[in-house]
Amino acid sequence: MLDIKIVKTTKPKEKPKKDHPLGFGKIFTDHMFIMNYTEGKGWHDPRVVPFDNLSLSPAAMVFHYGQEMFEGLKAYKTEDGKTLLFRPEMNAKRANNTNKRLCIPEIKEEDFVQAIKTVVKVDEDWIPTAPGTSLYIRPFIIATDEFLGVNPSKTYLFIIILSPSGAYYESGLAPVGIWIEDEYVRAVRGGIGEAKTGGNYAASLAAQVKAHDEGFSQVLWLDGVERKYIEEVGAMNIFFKIDGVVVTPQLNGSILPGVTRDSVIALCKSWGLTVEERKISIDEIYDAYKTGKLEEVWGTGTAAVISPVGKFRWKDEVMTIQDGKIGELSQKIYDTITGIQLGKVTDTMNWTIEVK
Amino acid sequence: MLDIKIVKTTKPKEKPKKDHPLGFGKIFTDHMFIMNYTEGKGWHDPRVVPFDNLSLSPAAMVFHYGQEMFEGLKAYKTEDGKTLLFRPEMNAKRANNTNKRLCIPEIKEEDFVQAIKTVVKVDEDWIPTAPGTSLYIRPFIIATDEFLGVNPSKTYLFIIILSPSGAYYESGLAPVGIWIEDEYVRAVRGGIGEAKTGGNYAASLAAQVKAHDEGFSQVLWLDGVERKYIEEVGAMNIFFKIDGVVVTPQLNGSILPGVTRDSVIALCKSWGLTVEERKISIDEIYDAYKTGKLEEVWGTGTAAVISPVGKFRWKDEVMTIQDGKIGELSQKIYDTITGIQLGKVTDTMNWTIEVK
Repeated sequence: MLDIKIVKTTKPKEKPKKDHPLGFGKIFTDHMFIMNYTEGKGWHDPRVVPFDNLSLSPAAMVFHYGQEMFEGLKAYKTEDGKTLLFRPEMNAKRANNTNKRLCIPEIKEEDFVQAIKTVVKVDEDWIPTAPGTSLYIRPFIIATDEFLGVNPSKTYLFIIILSPSGAYYESGLAPVGIWIEDEYVRAVRGGIGEAKTGGNYAASLAAQVKAHDEGFSQVLWLDGVERKYIEEVGAMNIFFKIDGVVVTPQLNGSILPGVTRDSVIALCKSWGLTVEERKISIDEIYDAYKTGKLEEVWGTGTAAVISPVGKFRWKDEVMTIQDGKIGELSQKIYDTITGIQLGKVTDTMNWTIEVK
Repeated sequence: MLDIKIVKTTKPKEKPKKDHPLGFGKIFTDHMFIMNYTEGKGWHDPRVVPFDNLSLSPAAMVFHYGQEMFEGLKAYKTEDGKTLLFRPEMNAKRANNTNKRLCIPEIKEEDFVQAIKTVVKVDEDWIPTAPGTSLYIRPFIIATDEFLGVNPSKTYLFIIILSPSGAYYESGLAPVGIWIEDEYVRAVRGGIGEAKTGGNYAASLAAQVKAHDEGFSQVLWLDGVERKYIEEVGAMNIFFKIDGVVVTPQLNGSILPGVTRDSVIALCKSWGLTVEERKISIDEIYDAYKTGKLEEVWGTGTAAVISPVGKFRWKDEVMTIQDGKIGELSQKIYDTITGIQLGKVTDTMNWTIEVK
């Protein structure tokens, strides 16, 4: 149990107007959580302080060697005024998996969740309530040693910032066009693909710019070894409904184990659907498309929850799915998960936690 | 040509004592170079200012998505008091290759070199002169947008910091033990391996810690696809002398194109040696070792220049090279390159540039 000191701001910022479009990750609340790590002393000085710039040496390791991890989750306000978090213990667990891979000291799961609850409680009034909005929570750790040797840092900062956010994609639930990437690779077995760390996202930018230039909003990543098995789409996991069966790539070390991915699998199974986690080649998808068995495709992630795929570009061919409209199952999953998150659908899975 | 403003410190720090062991990348000089980038405006406000902390939003992209690049080179003081740089135009070129891969705006090569010359000139008195020492120069760029969307940033900082440094490895030119890694992968074709960016170094930490725990000082990386071809050693390129021939892995997209690598190839060729840049499997090295043809092995990099390899650990076997002593060719290369860098050996290659 952390003993978290709270220093409230004396200069509260103006909150966004009710009808102001929030965008994603652009506006930040009045406070943030910070905790320091020092070798020999461990994690110490947990505190909620006014949101402010960080002052770091230009030699701080994070600027040079990318030793950093992050997480993402959301807080929601229910109609009766409760504040809910969605499966924060999953983020705490994944954070430590990332920490292990990046040689960053671990944080006790209960401390991680307590820190989130504490800072969210302080800035509870910032949680937006318009449809599709929520308070995006960004916990992250950065290496702060003032040293240019390539070694794990001996000092770190664990920080949580909060951002009232609208839909991740400006088009909301409208199906997106996906560019199947056959030049750039996001990650490979043995690398850092299953960790939530800057390097994977930095590596993804060039392909994303290429896809945008071609008029597609996201990239579908193939595996780095054989360049034929589907891994992720943009910064999301991906699902297919093929001939009635729900199929998603199995976690193989280079795919991020998404919390929404896990939730979608559990929900579909609870509805009696067959869910297969296995290797899926791009040829299999193309065959399913050609024979009319590719019924739905959607991405899953915390930011967008569900992002339906309307078309794929694969080499010279464009595959259109569901006439470019959202599928029935995709819509049902979206409604159920967001319903649970907002307290409108009974949470039979025990996924939400109230911040008191 | 940049119009660089110079603001000198009013509180100069104490310089390290002559006989004080400098270490690597631990001490920083009085000044640093900074230049801002803003979309629509380009790179602007180049300036040399007192070395100081950076003040950045906790939402700055570099902390979350690792959009960052760095370079490394050195300045040397000759016996007659000149300040020399070693092939800085190679770093400028490579910086822009990294920038392209990471969607960071490019910097004109001549501006990059001018910025280095200017800040080195200001802190010229910080260049150490004891044997094996030099002024390590670290140019780097970080993404500074206060935004959590995964997109290329629209604002950046280009910074150059300077560090008077001793040998990178505390043991100096003593041959090191290398752990051949068969679990973790550093980079893969299509990824960011040939870019000098944080993500590659973050990915390398876990294997390095494992090697250290086993009593080895560096890791030898195999390719991410077949796990059999040699790529790099630690954060260096690697060379073998096999039966009189110098062999090094060919640049394949996942290997960093080292400036020292390029210099070693040129020198060896100028001495009439055969140099092969090609795929080298770990099996080939093991066979060469078994048949007594593996004559020398060394790593190359700016920080260490030459790092002789004394032994390899490959699964359950340890291969000892040259009885664990430095080889004749490795020593000759080290003496020649450091000799050119210090102005003691005639620079027939035109590699050094004087800072005036």
